Amino acid sequence: MPEPVNLAAALATFTDHWAQRKIAEVNDYEIKLAKVQGEFVWHKHDDTDEPFLVISGRLTIQLRDGDVALGPGELYVVPRGVEHCPRADEETAILLVEPKGTVNTGDAAGDRTVGVREL
Amino acid sequence: MPEPVNLAAALATFTDHWAQRKIAEVNDYEIKLAKVQGEFVWHKHDDTDEPFLVISGRLTIQLRDGDVALGPGELYVVPRGVEHCPRADEETAILLVEPKGTVNTGDAAGDRTVGVREL
Repeated sequence: MPEPVNLAAALATFTDHWAQRKIAEVNDYEIKLAKVQGEFVWHKHDDTDEPFLVISGRLTIQLRDGDVALGPGELYVVPRGVEHCPRADEETAILLVEPKGTVNTGDAAGDRTVGVREL
Repeated sequence: MPEPVNLAAALATFTDHWAQRKIAEVNDYEIKLAKVQGEFVWHKHDDTDEPFLVISGRLTIQLRDGDVALGPGELYVVPRGVEHCPRADEETAILLVEPKGTVNTGDAAGDRTVGVREL
């Protein structure tokens, strides 16, 4: 049987930015945590919508049409195929739910591409 | 384009217990909120794992092998096929992520069966 996960305790186990940690599986999806700070890369996911739930801090999801600003307890789903570039001006913790195998950089594979890690 | 969702604001729009509200879609999944209090019914979902993330309050997920106790910021995934009965001794807000069409009472359809509502 799976163990319960305390999000704060899980977040306390790592310090690096933009590398996602898997905390649970739901069918063929993964629930993941990440700490982010600074600007990521512009990219899109042609095969999946991408939800961002801010746990702490502030996340700006830059879209070609304008920015979406999220604080703690706020959720935004970037639709599949929509270019976006997350940015966090302070260290920010986010929760993600995505199909297994989703690449963090979508169609923009490069030096920011990092696989999902175990806690 | 979807709008961002503030979980607290979304929770403030309803008061009834155990009726799930859809706040976002991710592919063929729904992200939902519910307020719960009291005891639900024993049931299982043969076709899907079921994650519970506690936003506020305290949730006890009763399993045949023992209880899982969750507070704010704690997550537990009930595996598919596992009988469970959620209970909340105080009003508790939870976030769920499930495939569209998942029935809240799983295999125990009855007077506690309620479809997912729009916010």
